[in-house]
Amino acid sequence: MNWKLAARAEKMNPSVLREILKVTERPGIISLAGGLPSPKTFPISAFADACAEVLHRDGQAALQYGASEGYTPLREAVAAMLPWPVDPAQVLITTGSQQGLDLIGKVLLDPGSRVLVETPTYLGALQAFSPMEPEPVGVEGDDEGVRVEDLIAKAKDARFAYLLPNFQNPTGRTMTEARRAAVSAAAAKAGLPIVEDNPYGELWFDEAPPPPLTARNPEGCIYLGSFSKVLAPGLRLGFLVAPKSIFPKLLQAKQAADLHTPSFNQRMVSEVIKDGFLARHVPTIRALYKQQRDAMLAALEREMKGLKVEFSRPAGGMFLWVRLPEGIDTVALLPKAVEHGVAFVPGLPFYAGEGDARTMRLSFVTASIDEINTAIAALARVVREQLAQNAAEDVQRRLAATPV
Amino acid sequence: MNWKLAARAEKMNPSVLREILKVTERPGIISLAGGLPSPKTFPISAFADACAEVLHRDGQAALQYGASEGYTPLREAVAAMLPWPVDPAQVLITTGSQQGLDLIGKVLLDPGSRVLVETPTYLGALQAFSPMEPEPVGVEGDDEGVRVEDLIAKAKDARFAYLLPNFQNPTGRTMTEARRAAVSAAAAKAGLPIVEDNPYGELWFDEAPPPPLTARNPEGCIYLGSFSKVLAPGLRLGFLVAPKSIFPKLLQAKQAADLHTPSFNQRMVSEVIKDGFLARHVPTIRALYKQQRDAMLAALEREMKGLKVEFSRPAGGMFLWVRLPEGIDTVALLPKAVEHGVAFVPGLPFYAGEGDARTMRLSFVTASIDEINTAIAALARVVREQLAQNAAEDVQRRLAATPV
Repeated sequence: MNWKLAARAEKMNPSVLREILKVTERPGIISLAGGLPSPKTFPISAFADACAEVLHRDGQAALQYGASEGYTPLREAVAAMLPWPVDPAQVLITTGSQQGLDLIGKVLLDPGSRVLVETPTYLGALQAFSPMEPEPVGVEGDDEGVRVEDLIAKAKDARFAYLLPNFQNPTGRTMTEARRAAVSAAAAKAGLPIVEDNPYGELWFDEAPPPPLTARNPEGCIYLGSFSKVLAPGLRLGFLVAPKSIFPKLLQAKQAADLHTPSFNQRMVSEVIKDGFLARHVPTIRALYKQQRDAMLAALEREMKGLKVEFSRPAGGMFLWVRLPEGIDTVALLPKAVEHGVAFVPGLPFYAGEGDARTMRLSFVTASIDEINTAIAALARVVREQLAQNAAEDVQRRLAATPV
Repeated sequence: MNWKLAARAEKMNPSVLREILKVTERPGIISLAGGLPSPKTFPISAFADACAEVLHRDGQAALQYGASEGYTPLREAVAAMLPWPVDPAQVLITTGSQQGLDLIGKVLLDPGSRVLVETPTYLGALQAFSPMEPEPVGVEGDDEGVRVEDLIAKAKDARFAYLLPNFQNPTGRTMTEARRAAVSAAAAKAGLPIVEDNPYGELWFDEAPPPPLTARNPEGCIYLGSFSKVLAPGLRLGFLVAPKSIFPKLLQAKQAADLHTPSFNQRMVSEVIKDGFLARHVPTIRALYKQQRDAMLAALEREMKGLKVEFSRPAGGMFLWVRLPEGIDTVALLPKAVEHGVAFVPGLPFYAGEGDARTMRLSFVTASIDEINTAIAALARVVREQLAQNAAEDVQRRLAATPV
């Protein structure tokens, strides 16, 4: 049978993250790899009440086809909860915010189109855009966010910059107020659209992050949000907010992609959040994740002492970014770590271009504090063993190179 | 702001069907337009029980991220219910079968790729493939299905033929056993892959349709199925079955598109169907739809008497295809029909190439029998009025053309 693949499919490679997540399902492995919210935070009884209520009151509509735009009360609730004036007509409900990336790719990217991304950036965004065969270009950054000069230097002919200003995946970095103001002004001046991804913004530990880039220039931005991190990811409920000039195209792409996001899930979430539930619930997630971040930072300080290990100190979110000493490649280290009962995600797949092979992403939200302590201690042992092995091999090499 | 659209998005036009469905939401309109299953058939209490049970027993997993392939017990249930040997590893759970079409487009279609479709074909498939910018080519057919000679004559360089053998959307046509055997053999010989879409196959009225094309040559086919018509569409649960050589690419496209189909919905449906529920439930849908089809056929016979109106007599499914007398364009007729309180879908958007402007699709499943009777009577009045108006205009034209 002549199954001829599309050119884009020939280029698709199995996701590194996928293969890793499979390994980490083995019993006995503590996974710091996946970005899985802590299931302890899922409001199961609120969902059970909402299911019963929605099916009782509105069962036929909840189980019927719905509008591609989404369920009107949910679109209204989303518009109302955002910190700038949003017309519900600009809100598109998506099957997770991952789908928003797919739709944006379809509407804005031609083969070879330049897309600016952070260095490193969210791997899933690179994957979502990839069927449209764009050319992702990494923008340099520092602790405050992307560097404005580099962003603007690379802006010519770019279709958009994809930015994740709050507790970025994978680094945990947050863009400062000053940098947001500068990025927003420079992008507006250069005519560079911004796609702002904000799945983690509510997960702040000490103070809320500065207002989104989109709030500063709504006509120049598409904003992506999600209920996955504040309620539960298993319902696949996200949304995007787009300027009215772009919205109809995104809506058509949405209709073609899956007709609409499940009516039932939209009504369930609408029911759960209607009486200010998130304002009561989200602080409990923040408190839990803050403890776990603190535990991971303390464990890293303790266990990695004397090793030249660098790590970020995220002010919220789910991830922490680690850079191991010279001579360690985290892709090669992973199988050894798994043997020691701990999994992480190597940093390389998060880079659009050449990456830093010494980096890795650790999630501090899925594992318990005890597990975090055990896992970081195991990781430190693996790093020490690898360094010792490197040193031994180095001696071997020097001996071999020494004339007898 | 320089929002530069992708070439494919420049070509997207608002869906005719979408705009029509909006009109039909007005109170007082009987819609025979949308393909909405009768909400009377939705097993609301079974869903309520399943929600409660799943959240109670398995809440944390049901609300967590899941594997892109889908929930294992649901994949196993799908494999077991299909009438040929299917390995659950070949089953991919999709967010409605519409998403299956999107994934197939991404994996198999390059710009300009030839796709063979029926004449007419499912509008939503044309929309799903369109972001990949293929060239859909209509294959001629007769009452038994696509014509084998025309299929094979057009097969050279075609990436696949998209076929809907059971109670086709929009015509209601079913491919005969003899035609299936011939199509399957000829496609295999020509090396032409088949994408077989079967959302309606269970909705037969007198006898089950012949076995699917995929059962005859699993390595040469991708099969699409859905729970939308046998349970409820608002959960967005579909699936595809693909040869093992193609499956990994479809899985990667799935992961990039929305990570996975909602874990909760997959568990709900898995719970509902686990004890043979479909074998008890689907016959009630068949019985209801059969009555409604009979009512619509009787109403058409009665109301359209004397008019040269042709219509299909589907043996199952949801739709009936109507061809009005010469001189009537159903796109122009629609606003007049809506004024008379009835809506339908004009036939033209269902054609890949040039279409027949006299055709329309009627759904017999959403409206009640009383509504069907009222709607068909109204439709007949509109047709008669249009014919009278055409005749009057014809007289005017002849008078105007007569030398005084």
